[in-house]
Amino acid sequence: MNAADFSLDPRLAADTHAVADLPLSRLLLMDDARYGWLILVPRRAGLRELSDLPRAEQHRLLEEIEIARTALGALGPYDKLNLGALGNIVEQLHVHVIARRRDDAAWPGPVWGHGARVALDPETLAERLRRLRGALPP
Amino acid sequence: MNAADFSLDPRLAADTHAVADLPLSRLLLMDDARYGWLILVPRRAGLRELSDLPRAEQHRLLEEIEIARTALGALGPYDKLNLGALGNIVEQLHVHVIARRRDDAAWPGPVWGHGARVALDPETLAERLRRLRGALPP
Repeated sequence: MNAADFSLDPRLAADTHAVADLPLSRLLLMDDARYGWLILVPRRAGLRELSDLPRAEQHRLLEEIEIARTALGALGPYDKLNLGALGNIVEQLHVHVIARRRDDAAWPGPVWGHGARVALDPETLAERLRRLRGALPP
Repeated sequence: MNAADFSLDPRLAADTHAVADLPLSRLLLMDDARYGWLILVPRRAGLRELSDLPRAEQHRLLEEIEIARTALGALGPYDKLNLGALGNIVEQLHVHVIARRRDDAAWPGPVWGHGARVALDPETLAERLRRLRGALPP
């Protein structure tokens, strides 16, 4: 299980845009205009459950959840953060960090499985990536 | 924000049974026969987001997620663990730790908002609590 053998699950790759590689995780922006929705994927091969990560890397993942939370703030105000690690469909370990608003499409339910993804138009995508990257630590 | 001022949200209390108090969190069993479903609630007043917990207590919460994961194993085999901290309805910080099976009611979707809760009969409840408590660290 090392970084050299890591490859992003093709279903995750198809639905997201890469924001940056953090020390542990690849940070992805879900291609969905309805939400501010980030995904952290630890860049280690063969991970499925959180418990597959050594404890020190679980702690690092908490740091990167905090980085994702801060970056989402740069996309605008929100009411509640949603965190989730499900993996029922895509088994590769990934953590959702989602900015929820009381007026969003799925509120107060979870975003997963709610309606169809609304792809970002190129201008909005470029602006979101710019803001997110600007909010990452140097 | 201290333990003395903690009180469990009444909606969480109504839907769950107390398993045990761990060093940080109250461990609850969701009263739903469809899933093995535990909830960790850090016993600190005023918590809403994971980021409201000091980092050392976030690390402790990871330990208690691991304890919950191990305890779920005592209820029988499962295919995938689901972790989530949503809080869109109940704002008090709580972490779901759910044993998912490929033949369960909501698979592969999330459990939240899927159909109606199926209350545990008293014998099954007593057996689940016995097994869960037997799997906790001394």
